[in-house]
Amino acid sequence: MEQPSSPDRAVLAARAIGLDTLRENVVVLARGCMALRPEHVKGVRKLEVAHGDQRLIASFMIADDPAMLASDEIGLTQPALRRLGAAAGARLLVRPARAPASLEQVRAKISGATLSAADFRAIMRDITAHAFSDMEIAAFLVGCASFLATEELIDLTRAMVEAGDRLRWNAPLVADKHCIGGVPGNRTTIGVVAILAAHGLMCPKTSSRAITSPAGTADTMEVLARVDLYPDELRNVVERTGACIAWGGRANLSPADDILISVERPLGVDTPEQMVASILSKKAAAGATHLLVDLPVGWRAKIRSSADARRLGKLFQHVGAAMGLSVDVIVTDGSQPIGRGVGPALEARDVLAVLDQACDAPQDLRQKTLTLAGRMLELSPDLPGGAGVGRARELLESGAARKALDRIVAAQGPSPLQAHVSACIDPIPAPRDGLITAIDCHQIAKIARLAGAPTDASAGIDLARRVGDQVRKGEPLYFIHACEPTDRGFALEASQIDCGFVINGGA
Amino acid sequence: MEQPSSPDRAVLAARAIGLDTLRENVVVLARGCMALRPEHVKGVRKLEVAHGDQRLIASFMIADDPAMLASDEIGLTQPALRRLGAAAGARLLVRPARAPASLEQVRAKISGATLSAADFRAIMRDITAHAFSDMEIAAFLVGCASFLATEELIDLTRAMVEAGDRLRWNAPLVADKHCIGGVPGNRTTIGVVAILAAHGLMCPKTSSRAITSPAGTADTMEVLARVDLYPDELRNVVERTGACIAWGGRANLSPADDILISVERPLGVDTPEQMVASILSKKAAAGATHLLVDLPVGWRAKIRSSADARRLGKLFQHVGAAMGLSVDVIVTDGSQPIGRGVGPALEARDVLAVLDQACDAPQDLRQKTLTLAGRMLELSPDLPGGAGVGRARELLESGAARKALDRIVAAQGPSPLQAHVSACIDPIPAPRDGLITAIDCHQIAKIARLAGAPTDASAGIDLARRVGDQVRKGEPLYFIHACEPTDRGFALEASQIDCGFVINGGA
Repeated sequence: MEQPSSPDRAVLAARAIGLDTLRENVVVLARGCMALRPEHVKGVRKLEVAHGDQRLIASFMIADDPAMLASDEIGLTQPALRRLGAAAGARLLVRPARAPASLEQVRAKISGATLSAADFRAIMRDITAHAFSDMEIAAFLVGCASFLATEELIDLTRAMVEAGDRLRWNAPLVADKHCIGGVPGNRTTIGVVAILAAHGLMCPKTSSRAITSPAGTADTMEVLARVDLYPDELRNVVERTGACIAWGGRANLSPADDILISVERPLGVDTPEQMVASILSKKAAAGATHLLVDLPVGWRAKIRSSADARRLGKLFQHVGAAMGLSVDVIVTDGSQPIGRGVGPALEARDVLAVLDQACDAPQDLRQKTLTLAGRMLELSPDLPGGAGVGRARELLESGAARKALDRIVAAQGPSPLQAHVSACIDPIPAPRDGLITAIDCHQIAKIARLAGAPTDASAGIDLARRVGDQVRKGEPLYFIHACEPTDRGFALEASQIDCGFVINGGA
Repeated sequence: MEQPSSPDRAVLAARAIGLDTLRENVVVLARGCMALRPEHVKGVRKLEVAHGDQRLIASFMIADDPAMLASDEIGLTQPALRRLGAAAGARLLVRPARAPASLEQVRAKISGATLSAADFRAIMRDITAHAFSDMEIAAFLVGCASFLATEELIDLTRAMVEAGDRLRWNAPLVADKHCIGGVPGNRTTIGVVAILAAHGLMCPKTSSRAITSPAGTADTMEVLARVDLYPDELRNVVERTGACIAWGGRANLSPADDILISVERPLGVDTPEQMVASILSKKAAAGATHLLVDLPVGWRAKIRSSADARRLGKLFQHVGAAMGLSVDVIVTDGSQPIGRGVGPALEARDVLAVLDQACDAPQDLRQKTLTLAGRMLELSPDLPGGAGVGRARELLESGAARKALDRIVAAQGPSPLQAHVSACIDPIPAPRDGLITAIDCHQIAKIARLAGAPTDASAGIDLARRVGDQVRKGEPLYFIHACEPTDRGFALEASQIDCGFVINGGA
């Protein structure tokens, strides 16, 4: 179905260029390209490159050196060639990409309009097709951040689900959990899923990677097993073990969510509505019927008051109901980090310590894991009300949960990372004698991110002290794990400016 | 002052790369670079490259081909080398750029905070230093689009002025005018400045290029003369002629405004507050004391009702007063395009026809030019109230205004464009017999932009008919001027979907 070159389209030969443009799609035109003259397309925002049915939208650069690119060639990176299914020399149809039509709806939103279900469907379709630039995605996100009516939020969530695939499970009850984050080290999911799987409650858990935190569940699980499963693999793991703990991105569940997150993450924008849409679209697409949402409240967590938590919880329940999801909400203590490790490998270490019943396992992490698992186990028709936590403890102490995790890890396959807890450790000393009265979750997360987490899975923070502890000046409050000199420098500097611990200097 | 390489910075040799990255700053690192290992900085948003006191912030790519870049080299485009004042082989200090601190204030704005004067100063300083990415600028713009208190708007405007240079004129009264746009062909500024200059009223006019329209005053003036004047040149032109009609970007007047516009433009975001900040920051920086703001009202113009115009006018006056600017507001007819040409070269043709008193000069453009010039002439202490329009007509009809324009054009220097009215013309026929009851400014502007204006100065629309005219089916309503096949195709297609003329089919 190749079409010839015409005034507004050109057929050019693919050439691999030895450049890695990181996450951006970029193609290269030759300065002397006659079929599509660079000076004519300079004002165009992007080019559309097609090979058969495969298309990509890319920004472009112009090569001045004929040795780099002949005038009838177009330069593409290896990932772009793969995405098009094209080999070097393949004939590609290239034309100026139009701005996606749904940008008009984004502009309407920015100027205060209420969008319809069809508007959100159009925007999510275009975003999923990679037709929006990062700048345009940022405009959509921030436009929605200013105001989104509840109906709009439901329509957005539904549009996100519809723009991707949906998993369907052959079970009457499909349990899922989610924590909205903001509390470093709060890595309960892996233990909870292990307990549910040991009991036989179906729990096909898909998670995002971290948005603004030093580790997401997917980042932490990746230390233990492969998480980027294709839908068939995911189904296979769940059929064999009754559960999984996977990254949702490759399963094409609400793919728009991943694209939105890729812009939210560097921008650091994370509104309640975007959070609800993101989480519920993923859960609905993953085929969950019941969802437990964990809302930690603390002075520096994402939610600062129980009134806010109640309001957010009701939003989750209202939108969840519209999506056919029964949502249970639990408000938990987010006043200080949970466990000791902050960062993928350090958190994975804590999770295993709990499941292994190690004597130095963090007790707060153990207790929270049991509470959440207990609440979810009570969905099970065979358990009487109030018996959930007891059953959870039984499954943990008998080693059944640990065995369930081993089965899940084996089914998902080995971790692609070689992430061990780092050997490059800097102790951060208490600046004075006194009583630790507070730990700033936000600052601890920031330092752990500067140390390299989650990009560097072994980086992060290992906490030595908790709220209520007495310390003497010079004793370590925590250890920064960072092997990269740049990261280490940034993290140490940030901890010197504000170590994140409030120490009452009296005593 | 060269510093050695250290773990978080590297000294690399500059190498010119034969790539044109369009407006983005992009540098290239070698895959094998040891001093700054690409896999370590992959998570970093941007690099900072310094040569002596000159610095630039750039995103980066990685070269896989050692022939393209040696491991101790960094690849830069020619414009980047120029900006750093560095020759090939120069030793450059390269390090990961930190996210600008003022991004925290942007996030606060997005989540609903009211920003302080210091916050806006910090943001404008970072934007002016090119430390924000386009995505981050979009987030700031859209965050402000949702709500900006009047005090914030004043602080933002002041911060924009302070982030650049200010011109000061040795005159008690410095007049300026501005139209907020939205009406195609409304190119009164050049004629008005010529009349004021002929009278001897100081009018150092700096203009933006088009944001969302097919031509700005700077784009149109550039067809007649050079407009990208440096501050010394601008001062020189004003000293010699009492006026100028220049683009403000090179004079470093509110440079943040130009950067904000470069993102507003592709996004198509243009709020009242951003408009007031943009215009008043430019006028205050250009040293104006008195400003006439033209607010056209029409069913498809930027302002749709006189109530909206009054509200916006008062916002201009309130913020203007805080900036020390006396603002006069005139509400004009924006119900249809003014003049015949839409696009830089076509509009320049109309302006010259008015000043030359050509018998086919568009009378609506002539009348509006006289009205605005008359209103501004009355600022002059030597003219009695009400005598302004008469004096303006006198200066136009005597040829004094045309001579004043010639002096300004000669002082600014010849146009760098070779923009003539295009020879590639497509007539757009009336789809039926009838009376033209309305012309859609928005659609006419859109078609003219698709035709290539203002990037292609010769492109645009030449109107053959006005509201109130009777037409017969097949008679041309207007002519599309577009030589580039891509542009021509897009413009023709848009005019076939909606030609922009409302024709009452009776008669």
